[in-house]
Amino acid sequence: MAEKSLYNYRINPHEVDFTLRATVPALGSAILNTAGIDADGKGFGVQDLNADNFSWVLSRIAFEFDQRPKQSTDYTIATWISDYGRVLSTRNFTLTDANGVEFGRAVSQWAMINLSTRSAVDLSGVGKNHEGAIVDAPSPMERPRKIREVMPNTTFEHQVVYSDIDFNQHVNTMRYIEMMLNMLPLDRLTAEKAMRMDIHFLRECRYGQTLTIGCELCEEAALFEIISDADYVAVRAAIEWK
Amino acid sequence: MAEKSLYNYRINPHEVDFTLRATVPALGSAILNTAGIDADGKGFGVQDLNADNFSWVLSRIAFEFDQRPKQSTDYTIATWISDYGRVLSTRNFTLTDANGVEFGRAVSQWAMINLSTRSAVDLSGVGKNHEGAIVDAPSPMERPRKIREVMPNTTFEHQVVYSDIDFNQHVNTMRYIEMMLNMLPLDRLTAEKAMRMDIHFLRECRYGQTLTIGCELCEEAALFEIISDADYVAVRAAIEWK
Repeated sequence: MAEKSLYNYRINPHEVDFTLRATVPALGSAILNTAGIDADGKGFGVQDLNADNFSWVLSRIAFEFDQRPKQSTDYTIATWISDYGRVLSTRNFTLTDANGVEFGRAVSQWAMINLSTRSAVDLSGVGKNHEGAIVDAPSPMERPRKIREVMPNTTFEHQVVYSDIDFNQHVNTMRYIEMMLNMLPLDRLTAEKAMRMDIHFLRECRYGQTLTIGCELCEEAALFEIISDADYVAVRAAIEWK
Repeated sequence: MAEKSLYNYRINPHEVDFTLRATVPALGSAILNTAGIDADGKGFGVQDLNADNFSWVLSRIAFEFDQRPKQSTDYTIATWISDYGRVLSTRNFTLTDANGVEFGRAVSQWAMINLSTRSAVDLSGVGKNHEGAIVDAPSPMERPRKIREVMPNTTFEHQVVYSDIDFNQHVNTMRYIEMMLNMLPLDRLTAEKAMRMDIHFLRECRYGQTLTIGCELCEEAALFEIISDADYVAVRAAIEWK
């Protein structure tokens, strides 16, 4: 059976905010980058799948950060696929500093789509090509939660521009996360509290669309909803501070 | 005398656009990151200067990209300081692929500011602490050009949010570049043409300000101006396609 794979990173100057600690988008970006590199290196990444007219699409992800490391911190992301079902493959992550202290973790769930129909395919067939990568270790945290209806008390409109889109011409995951975080007051964003973020990607948004980002700010939590101008919910998310 | 320093990078999945080639902001970010890491490693980075209440501020930068490399390309950024005057220190870069082909280059000019007054200090005094890093090699391209008055034919308003700001609470350089590029039609951004971009940073913008980004689109060029709601010009830039 396969082993967890390890990737080394360092918190670069452009990845910190004015508290000099890594931003959540910077850590999230390193996590998603690790997923891409690991899948590519094992022969079932987006580039390999594209050759057969398939692709991976992120369906849900949850992050937990106990703390955000300071600039120049060296850290290691371990990643492994624990299991897959008919629709979703589960990829896990832990983030550990040079002293071996785990300061963050994530669980992501991915669907495989047919690029012509853009609908999910049954992983029990094509999924076999990543079966050899499965590691016998459970997810390091509770899997991404369903998010209930959001009742925004503030909204913001954003037109999707070139810098928001990825190789697919869809809004990239980190940009959605930034759009939501940017709705929060600065003191929530820079607090030295442990946090958990759950994100559910329901539909894709494209270049030129106008999105409405709604935020429902609560005592120790915030809920988010991103709605497209074609009137569908694209993303729902929740943050909890501890 | 010192030698050029080399740093190795790879074009990651999240750094490409839908042409599967690295975006200009992704390459620009690697260039600025290299500047930060090199200065830190040699003892005159922002963290060291901050201890003495000084900091580096980017005044002007020019990039040339003959082509944008494809995803997974390994490349090397060479960087060196060629000289400094009373106000500006000049740091240079070349970008070279694994076959030794140079596909890009940059010249950046930095002022040192006193963090209390936020005004430039005379480098002939404090600048001595980076004199040992000077390399006897000229800039690899024409230095950043002055940019004449801009007469925008389109404008866009943007309120500065958390994701736009850096460790200084000022808008970070790559975000300015993204704001300007996002004014261009997609076919300019994704064309396989060589390009040169010159950027002049005149004043800093802060969290919460509303910026007006103006673009004057010409045949084989574009000019940009970013104006703050306090009615000063913050940034001017020009792109030329060849």
